[in-house]
Amino acid sequence: MTSVDTILAHAAARREESRARWFEWLRIPSVSAQPNHAPDCRRAAEWLASQLRAIGFTAELKDTAGHPVVLGHHPGPAGAKRHLLFYGHYDVQPAEPMELWTSPPFEPVLVDGPNGKRAVARGAVDDKGQVMTWLEALRFWHDTQGGPPCRITIVVEGEEEVGSKHLPDFLEANADALRDADVVVISDSNMWDVATPSIVTSVRGLVYTQLDITAANKDLHSGLFGGSALNPINLITRVLGDLKDEAGTIMIPGFYDGVQEISAERRKQWDGLNFDEKAFLGGVGLSVPAGEVGRSALERLWARPTADVNGIWGGYTGEGAKTVIPSEAHAKVSFRLVQGQSPAKVLAGFRDFIIDRIPEDATVKIQVFSHGEGIEIPSDSPFVRAAQAVLTEEFGKPAILQGGGGSLPVVEQIKQIIGLDCLLVGFGLDDDQVHSPNEKFDVVCFERGIDSHIRMLAALAEA
Amino acid sequence: MTSVDTILAHAAARREESRARWFEWLRIPSVSAQPNHAPDCRRAAEWLASQLRAIGFTAELKDTAGHPVVLGHHPGPAGAKRHLLFYGHYDVQPAEPMELWTSPPFEPVLVDGPNGKRAVARGAVDDKGQVMTWLEALRFWHDTQGGPPCRITIVVEGEEEVGSKHLPDFLEANADALRDADVVVISDSNMWDVATPSIVTSVRGLVYTQLDITAANKDLHSGLFGGSALNPINLITRVLGDLKDEAGTIMIPGFYDGVQEISAERRKQWDGLNFDEKAFLGGVGLSVPAGEVGRSALERLWARPTADVNGIWGGYTGEGAKTVIPSEAHAKVSFRLVQGQSPAKVLAGFRDFIIDRIPEDATVKIQVFSHGEGIEIPSDSPFVRAAQAVLTEEFGKPAILQGGGGSLPVVEQIKQIIGLDCLLVGFGLDDDQVHSPNEKFDVVCFERGIDSHIRMLAALAEA
Repeated sequence: MTSVDTILAHAAARREESRARWFEWLRIPSVSAQPNHAPDCRRAAEWLASQLRAIGFTAELKDTAGHPVVLGHHPGPAGAKRHLLFYGHYDVQPAEPMELWTSPPFEPVLVDGPNGKRAVARGAVDDKGQVMTWLEALRFWHDTQGGPPCRITIVVEGEEEVGSKHLPDFLEANADALRDADVVVISDSNMWDVATPSIVTSVRGLVYTQLDITAANKDLHSGLFGGSALNPINLITRVLGDLKDEAGTIMIPGFYDGVQEISAERRKQWDGLNFDEKAFLGGVGLSVPAGEVGRSALERLWARPTADVNGIWGGYTGEGAKTVIPSEAHAKVSFRLVQGQSPAKVLAGFRDFIIDRIPEDATVKIQVFSHGEGIEIPSDSPFVRAAQAVLTEEFGKPAILQGGGGSLPVVEQIKQIIGLDCLLVGFGLDDDQVHSPNEKFDVVCFERGIDSHIRMLAALAEA
Repeated sequence: MTSVDTILAHAAARREESRARWFEWLRIPSVSAQPNHAPDCRRAAEWLASQLRAIGFTAELKDTAGHPVVLGHHPGPAGAKRHLLFYGHYDVQPAEPMELWTSPPFEPVLVDGPNGKRAVARGAVDDKGQVMTWLEALRFWHDTQGGPPCRITIVVEGEEEVGSKHLPDFLEANADALRDADVVVISDSNMWDVATPSIVTSVRGLVYTQLDITAANKDLHSGLFGGSALNPINLITRVLGDLKDEAGTIMIPGFYDGVQEISAERRKQWDGLNFDEKAFLGGVGLSVPAGEVGRSALERLWARPTADVNGIWGGYTGEGAKTVIPSEAHAKVSFRLVQGQSPAKVLAGFRDFIIDRIPEDATVKIQVFSHGEGIEIPSDSPFVRAAQAVLTEEFGKPAILQGGGGSLPVVEQIKQIIGLDCLLVGFGLDDDQVHSPNEKFDVVCFERGIDSHIRMLAALAEA
């Protein structure tokens, strides 16, 4: 029996205990957005630090201007080849609206689902449940082997759900120590499906703005001013209506600068996934892809930038009619970016695009709420290859290398501040109701996550 | 001394009494939009009917499905040449927001202003104050001459501020009797300025719609669906952004069908008004006219149709960022029409314009809240000429014949149902704060209104 088989057998015999620890952590309502839960956030951090100490780590809470970061360390065996940095977050989204939960959000319960038992609670998967998959793997390495097979650093923050505002400060303050790691392992993403593991090798960047257009100094009556006064809603529709052409191409000059076509190999790989776009769109009541014409669904989702108006408001929005020409109009406009695009350049291009279309009498303000670039993780890195191999072993079928449509600002922060790539291996499923009522994590995913991390620790230590 | 001079002298000696009656009516909070004020509406109607009876009229309340209409009648002298119909409304706009009033809205007070005393109260001018100008004129004709110089019918409704919903039913039910009149006199408009009377000879029609666009069956996350799912806000901006071209021309096919160029005579007359568009726009913080290029300000306001988005909403409109692709987007879109345009045709053209731009996956609904045509009143009618002459006499300077930018649905209803033209002579000023807190009517305007109506009764009776 190899050491990995020993550890897996040890873990398999301790499923109840793993679950009990997981649920204990879930009972701490560490909602980072709500000030009254600040003590709970600290309690959740302390709980994690004490778990780490119990398995041979040094661990401390590092205070920030917000919630503390848990920083843990284990030197591993003498002469260890590799140094892995695990990142996660102990904070959770607010549970509201409470009335939509079938059980109290901070009292985890097991219920039946199509894949067997599932745990329902806020944070079940995002990210406490996923952090537990590697924490339990480290525990079982400690129990049976006396410690991990390589040097390990742990960074678990408490502000991911509120934008990781103070993580850059922490990363900068500890950059020298952290930079020593070889790769950052993160479990905060999904599998392809319950039977198929996946590694995310790109995340899109995000530029998120608010556009505020002001014309007259008060609301006007269209009977008196219609035909003379600038209408900021007509104007904002004109400006934003120009954002894309008929083929879905984004019309901001320079917007596509730096965007690379995907490689033939990647295209072949993605085509091989046989992604069912019809079912994907059909599930939300749509039938026709709305993005760039002539691109595959996964390409549009993982390798192409987008422009969406996420919100718009102005003027009279009540029942019936009011013949107002309002003084203001507003919109939230965001862009998903891919590797190679400069957020600053996209933002400058958008600004010019707007200003070119704004007449003398209007003033425009652009607020920026998010500003991150797209990141591609080389899929031929030794860590991605090693992870791919052990995941294939664990699940009995090849792990998929997929893109990510969303944005993980931390991946960019890590790259920029400490210069490391991330290894994104998560065990969630698309139906986990992350950020929604009745968040859940299938027990089979939780347990395969632990086993996968037990295997990955061995493989990554030697990669 | 002519009889008119006698009446004017009589009126001049009774300013206090006129004001007391006016204030008495203003104290009744006849807010038609608010169900709790329904008894007050009836009380305001009964007050008016009793005033009419006191000066020799028959008067009764005609019940409708909403608030009652006051119908009054005086046969005038035997063999009277003319039959005048006076229209007005006793209902007022809601007074909210109360906290912006400098005195309670239903406790009229006199305060000082640049033109002397002014009365501040809800309804001070719109339309109780203006109705009082002709009611007091009729009273003084009665006091001194025993009655009006011609046959008079009075129609004062209680639902003008909520769209005159039941007025058409009333007009139809009483069409035979009302049709006998020669012209409908309405005081519900403004003077050119405090020294210059005016007659409104056109009103614009109004088509007011709500556009509801639906795409997916729920809100989506732009990280997952951006680039694949149809975004209804991007779509609505595209559609509405196409409404006008750079020169302000409305791009709906057929929109301008039936629109006549103004006559050389009218153009000359309007040019002669030396309208100060710079000051007009400057007063609301604007400097550049925003309507059709190559048209004068008054032409754009009085003789050209418009298209305005009066409201727009959809998606996330709170603080900060939410990367949602919403399922719906909405807008209020209205058109001011001039004589010759068919509201039905404009609406059909708008519908086609929208549908042409809506892809397969979106559904669109167009609700219609208003649907009235523009009306032009022949400025060479004997009534307009007679009124113009006496107003010039009263004010010592020529009365202006002006267009109206707004819509008075009642003018269209009267034309369509009983076939009569209106004579629109009002005594309000642009700064009267109609529909806003601190509505006011300058006492000098109120009193000149009474005197003008005393003169007009004599002139119109013989026109």
